[in-house]
Amino acid sequence: MLKKYSPTILILTGIIVVLAALLVAVLVFISNQPAPDRGVKPMIEIAALEPDSAKWGLNFPNQYTTLLKTKENATKTTYGGSIAVDKLAEDPMLVTLFAGYPFSKGYTDDRGHMWALEDVRETKRVNETTPGTCYSCKSATNPKLWNVMGMAEYDKTPFSELGQLIDQPIGCANCHEAGTMKLVVTNPALKEALEAQGKDWTTFTRQEMRSLVCANCHVEYYFAGEGKYLTFPWAGGTSIEDIEAYYTEIGFTDWTHPDSGAPMIKMQHPEYETYTAGSTHYNAGVSCADCHMPYTRDGAAKFSTHNVQSPLVNPAASCGTCHTDVDYVVGRVNIIQESVHQTMMATERALMDAINAIKAAAENANVDAAKLEDARALHRSAQLRWDFIAAENSMGFHNPEEALRILAAATDLARQAQLAAELATK
Amino acid sequence: MLKKYSPTILILTGIIVVLAALLVAVLVFISNQPAPDRGVKPMIEIAALEPDSAKWGLNFPNQYTTLLKTKENATKTTYGGSIAVDKLAEDPMLVTLFAGYPFSKGYTDDRGHMWALEDVRETKRVNETTPGTCYSCKSATNPKLWNVMGMAEYDKTPFSELGQLIDQPIGCANCHEAGTMKLVVTNPALKEALEAQGKDWTTFTRQEMRSLVCANCHVEYYFAGEGKYLTFPWAGGTSIEDIEAYYTEIGFTDWTHPDSGAPMIKMQHPEYETYTAGSTHYNAGVSCADCHMPYTRDGAAKFSTHNVQSPLVNPAASCGTCHTDVDYVVGRVNIIQESVHQTMMATERALMDAINAIKAAAENANVDAAKLEDARALHRSAQLRWDFIAAENSMGFHNPEEALRILAAATDLARQAQLAAELATK
Repeated sequence: MLKKYSPTILILTGIIVVLAALLVAVLVFISNQPAPDRGVKPMIEIAALEPDSAKWGLNFPNQYTTLLKTKENATKTTYGGSIAVDKLAEDPMLVTLFAGYPFSKGYTDDRGHMWALEDVRETKRVNETTPGTCYSCKSATNPKLWNVMGMAEYDKTPFSELGQLIDQPIGCANCHEAGTMKLVVTNPALKEALEAQGKDWTTFTRQEMRSLVCANCHVEYYFAGEGKYLTFPWAGGTSIEDIEAYYTEIGFTDWTHPDSGAPMIKMQHPEYETYTAGSTHYNAGVSCADCHMPYTRDGAAKFSTHNVQSPLVNPAASCGTCHTDVDYVVGRVNIIQESVHQTMMATERALMDAINAIKAAAENANVDAAKLEDARALHRSAQLRWDFIAAENSMGFHNPEEALRILAAATDLARQAQLAAELATK
Repeated sequence: MLKKYSPTILILTGIIVVLAALLVAVLVFISNQPAPDRGVKPMIEIAALEPDSAKWGLNFPNQYTTLLKTKENATKTTYGGSIAVDKLAEDPMLVTLFAGYPFSKGYTDDRGHMWALEDVRETKRVNETTPGTCYSCKSATNPKLWNVMGMAEYDKTPFSELGQLIDQPIGCANCHEAGTMKLVVTNPALKEALEAQGKDWTTFTRQEMRSLVCANCHVEYYFAGEGKYLTFPWAGGTSIEDIEAYYTEIGFTDWTHPDSGAPMIKMQHPEYETYTAGSTHYNAGVSCADCHMPYTRDGAAKFSTHNVQSPLVNPAASCGTCHTDVDYVVGRVNIIQESVHQTMMATERALMDAINAIKAAAENANVDAAKLEDARALHRSAQLRWDFIAAENSMGFHNPEEALRILAAATDLARQAQLAAELATK
């Protein structure tokens, strides 16, 4: 049979076959190339719920060393970053808006994950009455403590006492299961909040988990009852309207505003709720980790950086994976954030006017008490909407339409509060 | 030399060369394939500024026959479409908001380009005092009339008299130069508005012209002076703040609101201003025509459909050119428009409250006249912002962040107007 073909054809065919085989081999080799530390037995066995990330780091040096970098970052983006910006100095209206509440005394912007423990111990908002609950999002020691003590006991332990058991900042154990490295819900409050909605996190896809583990902390929450039990107000849904209805139904209030007398709610950092409320990126299947922990390379090994920070610090890695024109999309972020910031400042001015009007009305002997109560209820509704966006760490970018929709409603309600106060003494 | 190779090699090589040449030839043939009517001398010569699109249509049947389809469309999208929806019946608040102005008597949603002439003649807003200016965006006869009469004369001619010279709806001559088929600015008001900004449209790229020709009509405008001279308020820029400042500076007002006594501005359809104000599609280089006149095929000929309508009627053609997941982007449109609509309704309720409060204050003998004037000025500012978005035919989609930013400001100002009115009698 071979006789039919000349040597030249056979040689050419041979070269082609060899080249193709070589190419396939190289591609297979590259795609299967292990991390420098993989393919070898883990050097150590990680105990379940191990608090010390350094131990996990022996097996996963890329992830661990990038986590450590969250302590070195000192970037400032236009509306965020990883340095402890004094928000009260930047925007003095906040002192009035949070009057009577610890956030009016100290409100610094977040730093990286590795700073969590030091920063919570140093904040001016902590005092002798602070419950242990305030450690819930600050330490990789938590999963073990929750397992040993139970969350109810953890939360009711005084902050200072609980602090003696805690020596690790946020780390591996907050999101991963030792051994399998699976992403897991570790915060009992998140598990319970999902259950209240009839959801079971163990049915979530891996991509959904790449957002959900962030909700271990990056959510709105409150401390329920005397035991300061960590609770997410999600039973009726996670929109601002759902959350307000929840708080109204249980009659919850964080503090009474000393100027307006309104029963206030302080919103925490509802990043997960805002992002998942129909944002374009979430609906397109993009997870928190895709932008905040973009894939990176160490030689041939691909891994998710654990130097979690603003995508604006390295937009080529974060945005560039999907968007070809990185300069263009960064320009979009700026336009969006500027619109949201401008709108947010208008909301704050409306809230300031409402507070002053209510204060003046309350000091008037002839005030109509019922109308004054209306004004206070409106102040509460307005400010919790504003704070839902103001406390959310993206200046609206996580969900621009939702942020602007909510701020528009907040301004409307704040002006109505001001009006109700004026009418209460008319 | 040929002796070196066996016949088999020569045959194989020959086949490859022939196949490659055939492939190239076919590709070249396809890419150069003319429209059925091209490559032949135009059947007729089109006179400069020819009003009758049917004549142009002899040379450009695909463009002409799709233009004719704008008369057949009867689609209703959630917030728009091509049927004459009675806006006043759909949203009775508009009757109060436009009280004292023709839009409170008749306000139907736009139909297609081919309906323009019939619809303007039938609207309840036209009466014996209507100036010729109202034909400015309704007819392909205009470029010729402007050339013959001059725009000043055109505008000051009574509507009924001018109508006898006009027998064509919107057509080819509104955007194209006969012969070259170049896109051109035909409306003198647009040319003058650009000049007032130091811009020369002849330096615009073709892609910029594919948006700019829409600005022959789809803009905010007013009638200047006794001669009702068509003017775009763009000298200071095209943002709503620029436009308000322009009107304030020249002391312009469309009508006085009979309930509030405020000097009002009616915004027209500022699609061009809104779209070009940093919207994501405009900044990405997408023109109006890309979405509203998507490329289509007639056999091998590619042409821009002239059946101009909502991209939601055929999102596969409009959105699908750039976006792979059409269902996803249509879902985005719905989410955005729902947010904008909800916010817009809140603005309208605030405007209604402002009008009622100002009316009550004005009827009170003890009213503080200065504060009442403040309230009226605020009503004007609020309503012109709301109308800038309400009259813009996209329910915010052309520029979601800008629409929501402006509506938030409108609500704020409307509530301040209401408050000023209440304080004027306190």
